[in-house]
Amino acid sequence: MSPFSFTHILTQAVDELSESESYKGLFHQHTDGNPLPSAKALCDIIELARAIIFPGYFGNSTVNSRTMTYHIGVNVERLFDLLTEQILAGLCFGSDDESSCTGLQREEAASVAARFISRLPELRRVLATDVEAAYNGDPAAHSFGEVISCYPAIRAISNYRIAHELLILGVPLIPRIITEMAHSETGIDIHPGAAIGSHFTIDHGTGVVIGETCIIGNNVKLYQGVTLGAKSFPLDENGKPIKGIPRHPILEDNVIVYSNATILGRITVGKDATVGGNIWVTEDVPAGARIVQPKAKK
Amino acid sequence: MSPFSFTHILTQAVDELSESESYKGLFHQHTDGNPLPSAKALCDIIELARAIIFPGYFGNSTVNSRTMTYHIGVNVERLFDLLTEQILAGLCFGSDDESSCTGLQREEAASVAARFISRLPELRRVLATDVEAAYNGDPAAHSFGEVISCYPAIRAISNYRIAHELLILGVPLIPRIITEMAHSETGIDIHPGAAIGSHFTIDHGTGVVIGETCIIGNNVKLYQGVTLGAKSFPLDENGKPIKGIPRHPILEDNVIVYSNATILGRITVGKDATVGGNIWVTEDVPAGARIVQPKAKK
Amino acid sequence: MSPFSFTHILTQAVDELSESESYKGLFHQHTDGNPLPSAKALCDIIELARAIIFPGYFGNSTVNSRTMTYHIGVNVERLFDLLTEQILAGLCFGSDDESSCTGLQREEAASVAARFISRLPELRRVLATDVEAAYNGDPAAHSFGEVISCYPAIRAISNYRIAHELLILGVPLIPRIITEMAHSETGIDIHPGAAIGSHFTIDHGTGVVIGETCIIGNNVKLYQGVTLGAKSFPLDENGKPIKGIPRHPILEDNVIVYSNATILGRITVGKDATVGGNIWVTEDVPAGARIVQPKAKK
Amino acid sequence: MSPFSFTHILTQAVDELSESESYKGLFHQHTDGNPLPSAKALCDIIELARAIIFPGYFGNSTVNSRTMTYHIGVNVERLFDLLTEQILAGLCFGSDDESSCTGLQREEAASVAARFISRLPELRRVLATDVEAAYNGDPAAHSFGEVISCYPAIRAISNYRIAHELLILGVPLIPRIITEMAHSETGIDIHPGAAIGSHFTIDHGTGVVIGETCIIGNNVKLYQGVTLGAKSFPLDENGKPIKGIPRHPILEDNVIVYSNATILGRITVGKDATVGGNIWVTEDVPAGARIVQPKAKK
Amino acid sequence: MSPFSFTHILTQAVDELSESESYKGLFHQHTDGNPLPSAKALCDIIELARAIIFPGYFGNSTVNSRTMTYHIGVNVERLFDLLTEQILAGLCFGSDDESSCTGLQREEAASVAARFISRLPELRRVLATDVEAAYNGDPAAHSFGEVISCYPAIRAISNYRIAHELLILGVPLIPRIITEMAHSETGIDIHPGAAIGSHFTIDHGTGVVIGETCIIGNNVKLYQGVTLGAKSFPLDENGKPIKGIPRHPILEDNVIVYSNATILGRITVGKDATVGGNIWVTEDVPAGARIVQPKAKK
Amino acid sequence: MSPFSFTHILTQAVDELSESESYKGLFHQHTDGNPLPSAKALCDIIELARAIIFPGYFGNSTVNSRTMTYHIGVNVERLFDLLTEQILAGLCFGSDDESSCTGLQREEAASVAARFISRLPELRRVLATDVEAAYNGDPAAHSFGEVISCYPAIRAISNYRIAHELLILGVPLIPRIITEMAHSETGIDIHPGAAIGSHFTIDHGTGVVIGETCIIGNNVKLYQGVTLGAKSFPLDENGKPIKGIPRHPILEDNVIVYSNATILGRITVGKDATVGGNIWVTEDVPAGARIVQPKAKK
Repeated sequence: MSPFSFTHILTQAVDELSESESYKGLFHQHTDGNPLPSAKALCDIIELARAIIFPGYFGNSTVNSRTMTYHIGVNVERLFDLLTEQILAGLCFGSDDESSCTGLQREEAASVAARFISRLPELRRVLATDVEAAYNGDPAAHSFGEVISCYPAIRAISNYRIAHELLILGVPLIPRIITEMAHSETGIDIHPGAAIGSHFTIDHGTGVVIGETCIIGNNVKLYQGVTLGAKSFPLDENGKPIKGIPRHPILEDNVIVYSNATILGRITVGKDATVGGNIWVTEDVPAGARIVQPKAKK
Repeated sequence: MSPFSFTHILTQAVDELSESESYKGLFHQHTDGNPLPSAKALCDIIELARAIIFPGYFGNSTVNSRTMTYHIGVNVERLFDLLTEQILAGLCFGSDDESSCTGLQREEAASVAARFISRLPELRRVLATDVEAAYNGDPAAHSFGEVISCYPAIRAISNYRIAHELLILGVPLIPRIITEMAHSETGIDIHPGAAIGSHFTIDHGTGVVIGETCIIGNNVKLYQGVTLGAKSFPLDENGKPIKGIPRHPILEDNVIVYSNATILGRITVGKDATVGGNIWVTEDVPAGARIVQPKAKK
Repeated sequence: MSPFSFTHILTQAVDELSESESYKGLFHQHTDGNPLPSAKALCDIIELARAIIFPGYFGNSTVNSRTMTYHIGVNVERLFDLLTEQILAGLCFGSDDESSCTGLQREEAASVAARFISRLPELRRVLATDVEAAYNGDPAAHSFGEVISCYPAIRAISNYRIAHELLILGVPLIPRIITEMAHSETGIDIHPGAAIGSHFTIDHGTGVVIGETCIIGNNVKLYQGVTLGAKSFPLDENGKPIKGIPRHPILEDNVIVYSNATILGRITVGKDATVGGNIWVTEDVPAGARIVQPKAKK
Repeated sequence: MSPFSFTHILTQAVDELSESESYKGLFHQHTDGNPLPSAKALCDIIELARAIIFPGYFGNSTVNSRTMTYHIGVNVERLFDLLTEQILAGLCFGSDDESSCTGLQREEAASVAARFISRLPELRRVLATDVEAAYNGDPAAHSFGEVISCYPAIRAISNYRIAHELLILGVPLIPRIITEMAHSETGIDIHPGAAIGSHFTIDHGTGVVIGETCIIGNNVKLYQGVTLGAKSFPLDENGKPIKGIPRHPILEDNVIVYSNATILGRITVGKDATVGGNIWVTEDVPAGARIVQPKAKK
Repeated sequence: MSPFSFTHILTQAVDELSESESYKGLFHQHTDGNPLPSAKALCDIIELARAIIFPGYFGNSTVNSRTMTYHIGVNVERLFDLLTEQILAGLCFGSDDESSCTGLQREEAASVAARFISRLPELRRVLATDVEAAYNGDPAAHSFGEVISCYPAIRAISNYRIAHELLILGVPLIPRIITEMAHSETGIDIHPGAAIGSHFTIDHGTGVVIGETCIIGNNVKLYQGVTLGAKSFPLDENGKPIKGIPRHPILEDNVIVYSNATILGRITVGKDATVGGNIWVTEDVPAGARIVQPKAKK
Repeated sequence: MSPFSFTHILTQAVDELSESESYKGLFHQHTDGNPLPSAKALCDIIELARAIIFPGYFGNSTVNSRTMTYHIGVNVERLFDLLTEQILAGLCFGSDDESSCTGLQREEAASVAARFISRLPELRRVLATDVEAAYNGDPAAHSFGEVISCYPAIRAISNYRIAHELLILGVPLIPRIITEMAHSETGIDIHPGAAIGSHFTIDHGTGVVIGETCIIGNNVKLYQGVTLGAKSFPLDENGKPIKGIPRHPILEDNVIVYSNATILGRITVGKDATVGGNIWVTEDVPAGARIVQPKAKK
């Protein structure tokens, strides 16, 4: 059988795969002139945001205090341009109307991007408390610099705080892509819809899941493998889950949850409570309580 | 000590590291003219397969229904070429005989690649059911598009289904590299040997392990951290594990397994059963059963 | 609102973000002429080390036994240059004195790099035992080649052994970045400070955490999701954790720990002991013991 | 002098270079949202056009007659997209009005790009005659394939014919950039405004200059270093040259011009005439004439 | 007119351009599994050859005398692999028979590549004389290093000497591509068929043309714009030029030709002769003669 | 003959090529820690300088008058860093003493780089006159923007003016590499040592050569192929050319030289003189004169 005898097989597969019945629902029809969300551009956006928030640790490392304004200025301008394009892509992606990616949406995208940028100083203030919490909570940490450079929690929380801000500003799709990028990088999966206070830290982090409607107070610390999930969710008349119902836990200030613990449903873990590792919690935990796994059998 | 005084140390290390005794068993002898499996090429293969299956979401985003045939055609041809080369690399890698990467093997590789491509329409049909299952099972999902673009489960299951198909066609090594690529990207580790039905979904996914001899029915849902593993395995007369014995669980249709549960050994979790989080299951679970962890101590 | 009307918002954000009060503690001041640790260079270093240790599997795949010396020679020289630069970056990063990245430090960096390279033959010998352990411990493994090419454990343990060696040689920061690179790639988080014997293996691996002061014997095997962590740690008079106190477990020879088990504190798991999955261990486990989770409720 | 003492010098230079008086006339003010002509995109456009015209020699080399439509289809679609963007950039670049890069211009750009593409079959027909002329005219040429792959004339003439077509369609700036790209690559400088017949060839080519208002018949051959230039040009009342006046030579069918000859002004070199090398011609040359340099002195 | 209305135009162009009549003679049919000459690979080949011949100036600049063997060894091995592939591509390109790229040709390609490499020490010896000649002949040259790093003549002559060697070894097409690469880079066009002695140099070089059947002695120096071309060439019965007839000049030892001189036909410029600039020479020049242009008119 | 039988040939070539006798004079010994001039870095330097001088035309095209300072600031800082490194490389390259690349040289390099940057505003002022001259002198030019974007003369003259400035500041080697980069790109070869006034322009440009000791006034215009060269040069007692003697022409203000003219030796072309094309000038030309070639023979 000469190599050419495969051509028929390939041609037939091409024909079958090009039939519209075959790709229905799996195909994103490109509307001419509309930008599409781009993983590459969103990576650049995260890199720029990190470079602006933590100057010298990310992005151009030659920045010094005398040239700070130049670097922040160029990065902010570029961030604005990239964000505007991606927000526009998100707005068009979500809309059903083919002709909808209009001048109005372009202006809205630029306006949202500008509002996001005006929130960056506040974002930096909160992330500074997260860095402090990670440093104070880990005897193995030697400096803020080490925490910023190495700790996956800082990357995951940075992406979450950026994505959460964009979600609040009404941007579709993009926030979720941003947190999934951190999920892939760190194994920490924080839904952009969650609300999380200051001084938040996650140790090691792989396997952590924080659901869409979680509310987390200040000074909370999670360990690797912790799930803050939904227990079950009501279905609508068609048997589809109803979207948007509060279904994830509330963790009040100063809560600690140890590794691989699973906390499910709209329950409250009260202030200063501690949840031990490898356990399954589906009921409220009182403030100050400390719950642990039953003893193992030997 | 001038920089040059280190030359002696380096030269000595080079000599020691170049002795054949030192690298025995850790060295892949290149046989001239034989291709080697290439991580870069396998990445391209996955990108192409995703672009063919989900047009517009992966690969060239400008495709529209009028130019679909051109894009599918070019992608299928390139996929065929890359796959033929990598399958050949896999075939040669596994064979002991130095001179074995022959014209016959090259033809076999092309033939396997063509058969794989003829399976793509069916692969797309099954993956469409996985997308549907992910969408239906997650109140946080807004559209099929979001599921295809963002959900790590879709990436991991795509790689698994591609790798499983190649394994069935007799390709060595390559399937495992493909699922490990998804493992690194998503934290979901599915062995290409597992058999998995339609409408399969994994929520969040980090830490999921699905072993080589697992059999999974239709409509099964797993959460993050679930292990479907082996309990123990018989050793041969040399104390080495015997390869290929069924040793992983069977999950029948509609089973749900919650986060961090561990199911071990050749046991059966019956139809419609639910396994709670953070538990350790080593015995059959009857159809329709619901098992959970004992209460935590407060 | 024309696009230009956003300029004022951006300019104001730039001014705010450029105030030194705003970035205090989050900013790495670049001292002119001093190199900075570079993620890109450290990736190259790991690639080179893997290419030297496992020739033909990583790096230039065309190496054969006749050209081995050329390839090892070029790779060792390049590794020496890159390592010297990165070690210097680590030494300067850690020092408070702005003018401290001196000729003396440059010479120290070169000397440390040379000593690291002289340890490579020994590193290869130990990693060979890890490959053997992974192969022997997994019925799904078909060859050493498959283990070296595909198994995430080999990547994580390689990075750990390289990082541990650098830590012993007194290099700051760099070792941690190297193990975090493997953490991101594999979901396995091994602190470079841990001490680990030969024939070490980790199955699947996602979610494994091995703390800074762990001591692990020979022939130890861990499964995915295992934590070897600290239970709690003493604080100093300022409420900050005291650094460097032994606070992680000791695992003696031949210990097996199953998936998602959590072992906390400076306890000892004795020789030949087995720890079952999904359990929480905070007390010594005697040699030869086998502890498991209590039965799940149906 | 410490490195930091240079900061003042740099800051002062930055201030001076940022004053609007300093960069007046040398600065292209970016109007938000308007694309700019991109050298990178124009390179891609040329590569695509070459791949479409000479399939298998440029672009994806794996094309065969069975997959031709797929490749041409994808390339034409991509060429249309890139050209539309660049033509739009050209249209906006030239217009004085800041707000002018409008929907209307975007539609015009797409329309021009489509018209250009509909001319590609004719472009290919003419370029085929150029290839034939180069092959027939050079005893050193072994095959059409060698001429297409190696001969700089084919690259320069391809760029010229593409640029000329765009110029006729009313595209500003872009045609000139395209011919200057070939000028840099080959040393052959053909102004896109020149009109050139079929079976045109240039041997070696370095140093050839063909001016804006040249008219060249069929079967013309030039050698390296030939200039078809303007002798002088009338100035307007401000002493500026008047644009657009015919001022370059007319070469009728079958003319040959040998190396380094210079032909200047709106003169006519008649049918079948031959112009010898290294001479300076400023008057009409009759049909069939043969002019040469006076003898050198020994 | 909506953007989609252009689809018909594009589709029609695709159909027209995909008809086999349209691309006849301009299309390189890819025979499956056959490599094609690759501009990228040939660039790498030239880079490697330069790195081997001039160590430290091209390629890896960190080479020192202690690590020379490692670098030369790796570069020679890689050069052998790349050359074998490209020579094979050249052999297959030229053959009419579709099935001809066989094992026999592969072996021939490897054999030719090996013979080329065995000629490298001699190539280096001759190029050393060219470097010396350039240095001695230019008062502006400060060191051999400057000549090797900066002078376009060295690049053009290196490519020529490599290409000439391959031509002698019977490799088709590739030699011409290699000299055209230098032509594009330097404006110096030397046909690989020319025979050139030692101590050859070209000052500035742009516009120099050296034809296929030129014979050049030792110690010859050319200036920019010099043509050593054919005067005319006999046609065969079909009116096509007869290939391979000696038709370019012979320059004996110690000849100097000044800028823009044109020497045409199978004439001989005798030993020690000097040809002035901007003249046209079509008859023999006696040994030791000095010919110049007639005086310009004022 | 199996592929392996070539190993002996390769190994022997490696040995021969690694003998120090073989590479003597062609080898740049790397002194550890010393930077080497880098073609890549010098390209970046030219790109940065162009972006600073012509904002919006080169480099980041999104710059507008409100963000000008940020862009100039970042570019100037980066230019300073890159230049310092390359100037240092030039200083070390030229010095014979192996240990000479010292802290003193590093400080000198930074000081020279700073002085160069302080000259940028003046460089821009002069280049603005060159742009104006090109625009005024070419009826085919439509705007300053077209001249800056497309005209090879602007690129060549920019590189020359940068290189000349560095030469005046005492930097070795680097200036020549910079002008040779433009030579390769444009075919215009201007030695960095030449002195050239304002409002300088070159039309088309391929083949132009301007020698080391040329002196060119204001408002001078050259056409393609013009040589301003040396006639002959005195040799020292060893038969080597004596370096640094004035040996190239002086062109006074407002001189025009037409295409392919060759002007040789330390002669003066007086104010307002015109030199016709294709002629050879070796004697002074009086102010206001107009010299042309004798008539061609028909």
